Amino acid sequence: MTDFAIGVDMGGTNLRIAAVSIDGQILEKINLSTNMSARPDDLVDAMCGAIERLTKQHGGTGNLLGAGFGIAGIIDLEAGVVRKSANVPSWCNYPVRDAIERRLGTRIFLENDAKVHALGEQWLGAARGAREMALLTLGTGIGGAIVLDGKIFHGLHGMAGEFGHVTIEPEGVPCGCGNRGCAERYASATAIVRMAREAIAAGNAPEIARAAHTEPGLTAKMIYDLAMQGDEPARCIFRSFGRALGILLADIVNVLNLKMYVVGGGVASAWDAFAPTMFEEIRRRSIIYAASFPDEMQGDSEGAAANIVDRTLQKTIITRAVLGSDAGLFGAAKLAMG
Amino acid sequence: MTDFAIGVDMGGTNLRIAAVSIDGQILEKINLSTNMSARPDDLVDAMCGAIERLTKQHGGTGNLLGAGFGIAGIIDLEAGVVRKSANVPSWCNYPVRDAIERRLGTRIFLENDAKVHALGEQWLGAARGAREMALLTLGTGIGGAIVLDGKIFHGLHGMAGEFGHVTIEPEGVPCGCGNRGCAERYASATAIVRMAREAIAAGNAPEIARAAHTEPGLTAKMIYDLAMQGDEPARCIFRSFGRALGILLADIVNVLNLKMYVVGGGVASAWDAFAPTMFEEIRRRSIIYAASFPDEMQGDSEGAAANIVDRTLQKTIITRAVLGSDAGLFGAAKLAMG
Repeated sequence: MTDFAIGVDMGGTNLRIAAVSIDGQILEKINLSTNMSARPDDLVDAMCGAIERLTKQHGGTGNLLGAGFGIAGIIDLEAGVVRKSANVPSWCNYPVRDAIERRLGTRIFLENDAKVHALGEQWLGAARGAREMALLTLGTGIGGAIVLDGKIFHGLHGMAGEFGHVTIEPEGVPCGCGNRGCAERYASATAIVRMAREAIAAGNAPEIARAAHTEPGLTAKMIYDLAMQGDEPARCIFRSFGRALGILLADIVNVLNLKMYVVGGGVASAWDAFAPTMFEEIRRRSIIYAASFPDEMQGDSEGAAANIVDRTLQKTIITRAVLGSDAGLFGAAKLAMG
Repeated sequence: MTDFAIGVDMGGTNLRIAAVSIDGQILEKINLSTNMSARPDDLVDAMCGAIERLTKQHGGTGNLLGAGFGIAGIIDLEAGVVRKSANVPSWCNYPVRDAIERRLGTRIFLENDAKVHALGEQWLGAARGAREMALLTLGTGIGGAIVLDGKIFHGLHGMAGEFGHVTIEPEGVPCGCGNRGCAERYASATAIVRMAREAIAAGNAPEIARAAHTEPGLTAKMIYDLAMQGDEPARCIFRSFGRALGILLADIVNVLNLKMYVVGGGVASAWDAFAPTMFEEIRRRSIIYAASFPDEMQGDSEGAAANIVDRTLQKTIITRAVLGSDAGLFGAAKLAMG
């Protein structure tokens, strides 16, 4: 008998549901589309139908331990209510946990999507075994999560880890949150496209301008491909991206001094394009990182940092997520495994 | 019988030692001067002599529970060794805990000075009863501490809470740490004096220029007094200070989402001069703060923030420390009370 849990990852267009065994195998995965216009109860019906199919299918080999949901948005964890989710607008103040628990008769756990992503990477991915870590997800914005002593650290309102709105440029690009110069205005897919449009407008990015005229228009992926082909304006965009992400990570390292920081989300696949500038910034801007990563400092003139902290210190690790889009499914299922 | 502990606060010029009862009374306080040139053992002798006097004096009324030391610098908490302290240069890699424990025969606890300051404010001061809080100490630089579940959160190398080196202006004033634009370059006593000198050099700060010609030369206190008298260039310096501190606090709120943030240290006494700008920046730059502090938002146009987070949320509190220079003594003693 291998017990299992259900993991649900509610993305912008896709709703993915999987049965995951307690030893970390995806037994079966179902993709539904998130029908944005659906009534809240219809969406619950569709999800519960899929979960029931999975449970019937795999109930013979083990017990269902519960179901965990990773949802982008503001969630009242105590009440089990989704306050607001851009992906599922009809769930505004909707009591998701009660609605599903009543229907399925199993324990339901809600959590923010970046936070289940972190749990997944910590259980089976890049941060396997790390009791203290932070995760940044780079997508249309920046999501974040902090894991302390093996558990999600929520803070007072469940909002700990709002890394996307750390100020990078005090008088920089306006953000929807009311601030200027938020990290996610500089290090996200949205930011890449904005910088690409600015480069086109400046008239010195012919390859990017050409790409913009193809269907379906500019995407972050196109700019990444151009950068990898050596296009200088595209490379410049990823250097700006890496600089901003480096400033953000240095700030987080200075505040938290954790063992491990994992960078995930769709845009993390452009790692090769932004990571060199990112690491350069972090070494310069975090004495904690520079001092606890002496191997990378050879040839640098960062003696001051090396002097004040013992060189035998444990290393600070900043690395890529490895589970890709399954991280959320694993993490959501883990939530229900306790 | 009221048991007590010894608290030691090792400042730049003063070494303060107190017997503190478990109910939070200072029974007696001794001031020694930190003789910077003293041999490490001489300093230990002087301190132990004072601690023995206090113990003899108050041993009749209760048991000595131990002695806690708040030390500015890098401390290896596990080994009980001071790696480096600007205030006590002779203690470089000095095994303070063993040296004192051997001599006194009581349990010795070492901790960073900002961190014992936080313990003091959490025990008896502005954060009394708060299980989760952060403290910033504004002095020649910025010190910091994070308290989670009632205990100091150290991070991997004991460096969690290095708030002074969070980047505020990515291409700003160079910092001794190797970075540019660190928070403590803009919101410390040192920063106030730098900005004052710049104002003098710019030729439009006659009152500050006059103050600079008195003995013992420019101090942050002088600029504060001028600001309180309405001198516009001095007020402008504190607005810059408040802006930088506001950016820093907004970043910390966005990362940690704690209940309470306490601002202490000598320069916190200039609160009236910098707090209005500081709060303005925090409201603008942290949606978490703005949304969880609706009372302050009346007349503001921060509806976006208010909409996404429930108005019944617990408030985020940002406030001044109240224990002044005794916070370190209380916190150091508390360390030894367990």
